Amino acid sequence: MVLFERVLIIGVGFMGGSLALALRRKNVADKIYGLDINPDSIRKGLERGAIDEGSVSIGNIPSFDPDLVVLASPVRTFRRIAEDLRGKISSSCIVTDLGSVKGHLVFELEKILGSRYVGGHPIAGTEKSGVEHSLEDLFEGKKAVITPTPRTDPKALEKVKELWQRVGSKVELMDPVLHDWVFGAVSHLPHAVAFALIDALIHMSNGVDLFKYPGAGFRDFTRIAASDPIMWRDIFLENKENVLKAIDVYISSLSNLRELIAEGKEKLLTDYLKEAKTRRLKLEQES
Amino acid sequence: MVLFERVLIIGVGFMGGSLALALRRKNVADKIYGLDINPDSIRKGLERGAIDEGSVSIGNIPSFDPDLVVLASPVRTFRRIAEDLRGKISSSCIVTDLGSVKGHLVFELEKILGSRYVGGHPIAGTEKSGVEHSLEDLFEGKKAVITPTPRTDPKALEKVKELWQRVGSKVELMDPVLHDWVFGAVSHLPHAVAFALIDALIHMSNGVDLFKYPGAGFRDFTRIAASDPIMWRDIFLENKENVLKAIDVYISSLSNLRELIAEGKEKLLTDYLKEAKTRRLKLEQES
Repeated sequence: MVLFERVLIIGVGFMGGSLALALRRKNVADKIYGLDINPDSIRKGLERGAIDEGSVSIGNIPSFDPDLVVLASPVRTFRRIAEDLRGKISSSCIVTDLGSVKGHLVFELEKILGSRYVGGHPIAGTEKSGVEHSLEDLFEGKKAVITPTPRTDPKALEKVKELWQRVGSKVELMDPVLHDWVFGAVSHLPHAVAFALIDALIHMSNGVDLFKYPGAGFRDFTRIAASDPIMWRDIFLENKENVLKAIDVYISSLSNLRELIAEGKEKLLTDYLKEAKTRRLKLEQES
Repeated sequence: MVLFERVLIIGVGFMGGSLALALRRKNVADKIYGLDINPDSIRKGLERGAIDEGSVSIGNIPSFDPDLVVLASPVRTFRRIAEDLRGKISSSCIVTDLGSVKGHLVFELEKILGSRYVGGHPIAGTEKSGVEHSLEDLFEGKKAVITPTPRTDPKALEKVKELWQRVGSKVELMDPVLHDWVFGAVSHLPHAVAFALIDALIHMSNGVDLFKYPGAGFRDFTRIAASDPIMWRDIFLENKENVLKAIDVYISSLSNLRELIAEGKEKLLTDYLKEAKTRRLKLEQES
């Protein structure tokens, strides 16, 4: 049995498209409507079979009358969309999102949309963007973090939980503020680090094109630097405080490593590298 | 026809073992002898079929009488090994290595071993260590950088070039000093950056175990931090000058990104991320 009759996905890109395909495949939704400011995305979303109908205009929402809206656009568009949405959906319509930033944003969206808003963040994705690259099994076996507040409507929360479970995800509830600290560290920081690595190599490439020599590991290591710039600009700015803190801790870790190399502290340098290796290997074993 | 009758590999680990397997598979060498300070590595090398015979003692070399010696141990052992080797191999025996650092080390080894020494650096590898993980096709389609000097014996150079071609590599000649600048940037820097990322996450993991949330990309991104600590300690110390310079450029790139986020400079931040994405994508298309 379907969980939602009419799902509206705002932002028909890689993430929104992948969710649409998964909802369809798992019979979670009956009809899926896509909204995107880019007519090309609507066209590709229809072609890909991700959406049944689509539009570039938010004015068409009332006639579709969704019982679920999923915000799948860059996070800094959420507030404005929520304002626009408020008068156009029925009071029983649930709203959730796929944003990588929660924290204060969750409380702001709740203020606009009320208790029917349930914050969500599927821990899945690739460096690819665009609905044409959508994957129907993207969420299979992945974590889906849901960030309810004391105000969240329990029934809306249950339905959003069930949605993620039905597309194969392992649901984990997390405080919205804790979420931003954790993902600031494990996701936003690594992306900043990877973007900066490419930037550094561009700067060092005078005289010799360093990009001609992508050694072992370099490709894997920098793949995430090919992620969507607008999406990541928004994440960095929206989770600014945690991202800056994480970058500061990171620069201090790297400066510490630099010191050990500069001063030739063999024993301490070996310990530093060994601890990193051990921790990284544990990650492999745990999963 | 074999290129070498008796090959001695010093350091029976992942790289030495993979070369041994490739030499055997491509009929480049007749007999392969392994030397390692760790008797366990010799045992595993024999088990893996990488070496025909092995020993922990350099005293056994004269009876094996190699016509090629490959240094495959951590780079900071090369000088001492070269000193020990000098009196134990015939004057026609060629010596090469698989070290990730060339530069001044090449000139020092040449001083000890003479013109028969040819510096080499196959651009291949994984984060794995240990001869038990060796891959016979590791070098297939990969670059092998060879770093001759004006003094290098042309015949020795030709044979080392042929060796790499026969195991499937694309040979590229490079000045030893340029080599260390290039690989300091494209390989040693990314490893330092990855080790430091794990270190930073360890420091940030108080109260919450951040490693429980390895998001999309994090695994790929940090895989190289599981590389062998001793090998990397040696590379960092041996290529210290270039590694420090690269880390400095990197910290300045990351600090620049930090500033753009802190000051909310949307346009410049977007440009920074877009340029990194574009450069990274070009890498994918070129290869």
